[in-house]
Amino acid sequence: MTRIGIDIGGTNIKAVLVDDRLNLLSRTTLPSLASDGPSAVIEQVHRVIESLIHKSEPTVQCIGIGAPGSVDFARGLLLHPPNFPGWDEVPLVSLIEDRWSIPVGLENDANCAALGEAYFGAGKERNTFVALTLGTGVGSGIIIDRKIHHGEKGFGGEFGHMTIDYNGPACNCGNTGCIEAYIGSGYLMRRYLETIRHSPDAFHYERAAGAADTLSPRDISNAAEAGDKTARAFLYETGALLGVAIASTTNLLDITTTIIGGGVAAAGKPLFDGVLSSARTRVLRVHRDSMEIVPAALGNDAGMFGAAMLGR
Amino acid sequence: MTRIGIDIGGTNIKAVLVDDRLNLLSRTTLPSLASDGPSAVIEQVHRVIESLIHKSEPTVQCIGIGAPGSVDFARGLLLHPPNFPGWDEVPLVSLIEDRWSIPVGLENDANCAALGEAYFGAGKERNTFVALTLGTGVGSGIIIDRKIHHGEKGFGGEFGHMTIDYNGPACNCGNTGCIEAYIGSGYLMRRYLETIRHSPDAFHYERAAGAADTLSPRDISNAAEAGDKTARAFLYETGALLGVAIASTTNLLDITTTIIGGGVAAAGKPLFDGVLSSARTRVLRVHRDSMEIVPAALGNDAGMFGAAMLGR
Repeated sequence: MTRIGIDIGGTNIKAVLVDDRLNLLSRTTLPSLASDGPSAVIEQVHRVIESLIHKSEPTVQCIGIGAPGSVDFARGLLLHPPNFPGWDEVPLVSLIEDRWSIPVGLENDANCAALGEAYFGAGKERNTFVALTLGTGVGSGIIIDRKIHHGEKGFGGEFGHMTIDYNGPACNCGNTGCIEAYIGSGYLMRRYLETIRHSPDAFHYERAAGAADTLSPRDISNAAEAGDKTARAFLYETGALLGVAIASTTNLLDITTTIIGGGVAAAGKPLFDGVLSSARTRVLRVHRDSMEIVPAALGNDAGMFGAAMLGR
Repeated sequence: MTRIGIDIGGTNIKAVLVDDRLNLLSRTTLPSLASDGPSAVIEQVHRVIESLIHKSEPTVQCIGIGAPGSVDFARGLLLHPPNFPGWDEVPLVSLIEDRWSIPVGLENDANCAALGEAYFGAGKERNTFVALTLGTGVGSGIIIDRKIHHGEKGFGGEFGHMTIDYNGPACNCGNTGCIEAYIGSGYLMRRYLETIRHSPDAFHYERAAGAADTLSPRDISNAAEAGDKTARAFLYETGALLGVAIASTTNLLDITTTIIGGGVAAAGKPLFDGVLSSARTRVLRVHRDSMEIVPAALGNDAGMFGAAMLGR
C-alpha cells in the first residue's frame, strides 16, 4: 500500500508518493494557478494525483492534502485560504474522493509541516513536540503522541499570538505584544531598520537609509555570517524574544522539544543561541535540562510529507 | 460499583464515596497530621478509606488520591509535596493498594480539581477546558476530551508560569513577568498595598500604612463589594492581567472555556469582568464569540470529586 501527500501552496502544488515504510517512491511539482480560481487549482491537484498514481504499483491507500486557511473537518471544507482569490468554502475532500474513490484527508498546512517533521524529519525520534514555522506569520503545529492537537474548532497552534508583553507593539490580529509582532518577517524587518538606524557601524547602515525596501531577513543572516556584530546581536535578541514564548509553552504543556523551521529560521546559530539561552533561563527548573531546540529538517518539503501521513 | 476519591491537603484529608452515576453516597474529613510525617498521614488515609468502605454496599471499584507535589506515574510515587515535612519519594500507590487490594490512582491536586469540575462542576457540559486555581500560586489543569493533559513528564498545566511581560516583575520560579508574579496571593497583596499607598480615598489606606500584614485578598473583595472604587479598579485590572495569559492559552490551544476557582477567585464580579474584557479583546477573532470564563462550582471540594474519577 502507498500514500500520496499533497501540499497546496500559493505558487506550487508539491506532492509525494510514499510506501508503508515511509520510503519516498516519487515526487512531483506543478504550478498551483491560484490566481485562476478554485477550479483551476483543483484541476492541478487532479493532475498531480494522476501522475503519482501511475507510479504506484500497489493500490494508493489514501491521499492527504495540506493547504493554507482553515479546515472544517466535519464537512471536509477548505475555508477562505489567504492569497487564493475566489475561494470561500470549497468541499475539497468530496471533490477529490469522488474522482478517485480513495479516502482523502485534509489539514491546515502548518499542521502538515509539523506532522512531516514528526514522521520524516527532526521529530522522528520524538512523540511530542511543538513545531514552529517562522515566516510572514509565526505558525505552529502541536504534536502530542504523534497526533496533531486541533483544539475545539481546529484552530489550535496559533503560537504566534501568544503575548510576551501586554504593553508591547500592535499585532495585525488586534492584540498587543504577540510574539508575531516581533518576529513575523515584516515586524522583524521594521525592528531591524530601527536598530541599525542608530548604528553607523552596521553592515546595512547606508542601505537602510537609502534602499530599506530591498532588505530581507536573508540579508540580516548574511550580514551576521559575514561578522557584522549589529546583525548578530539583533538575531540573538530576536531569538531571546522567541525564547520567552517557548518557555511559556513548555511550562504550560510540559512539551520540552521545539522544532524551528521557516524562512526566518535560516538565520541559524545567533538566532538559535538566543532562543536556547532565553528559554533555558525562563523555563521551570524541572524542564531546564530536558529542553531541546531543534532546527527543522525538511524545509519546504515538510508539508507534503506530513500530508502523506494524514488519516494514520 | 462505587469509587472513593481522596484529597490530601496540608490541613485536612477530605474524601467522598460516589456511585457509577456520579451520585454522592458519603463524605468524610480527617486532619492530615502532615507535621507528624509520612506514616502518620498514610495512617489517616487508611482511616478515611476504612470509614467509607463500610458505607459502600457494592464493592469499591477504585480509589483515587489527589495530593500536592509531583507524581511519578510509572512508579506510583508522590514526590516532595510542599509543606509535608519528611516526605521525599513516597510509594503511595503500592502502600494503599497492598492494604486494600483495590486499584489506586494518584494525581496532582490541581489536576484533580480540574477533573472534579469536569465531571461534577462547572465543566459538566464541556469536554475540553482549562481550570485555573488562584491562590498562593496559580495552578491549572488542562482537560482535553475529559482527560488531563499531563505532558511529557507529568508537569503539564503550569499556567502560572506563562510570561505576560518579559520585562515584568521577578517570579519565585526565577523567570520574570509570569502571571503568578502579578496575581499569586503574595504578589497580589504587594501590588495592592503599592496601589493604595497613593490613594488616600481607598478604604484600606490607613490600615495599609499601619497594619498591612493583617490585610488579605478577602479584604480587597470586601472593600470592592462595599463600593470602594480603588479596590474595584484594582480587581478589574488584576483580572485584565489574567486575561492576557488566558488569551495566549486560548490562541495556542483553541480551548475556549476557562474555569476559574481558588481563594483569589472569590473576588467575584470586578475580577471576572476584567478577565473577560481583556481576554475577549486580545484573543483571535475566531474565538471572540465562543469564549467563556466560568466560575468554578465546587470550591475546595473539587479535588476529592476529581480524585474519584481517576482511572476512568
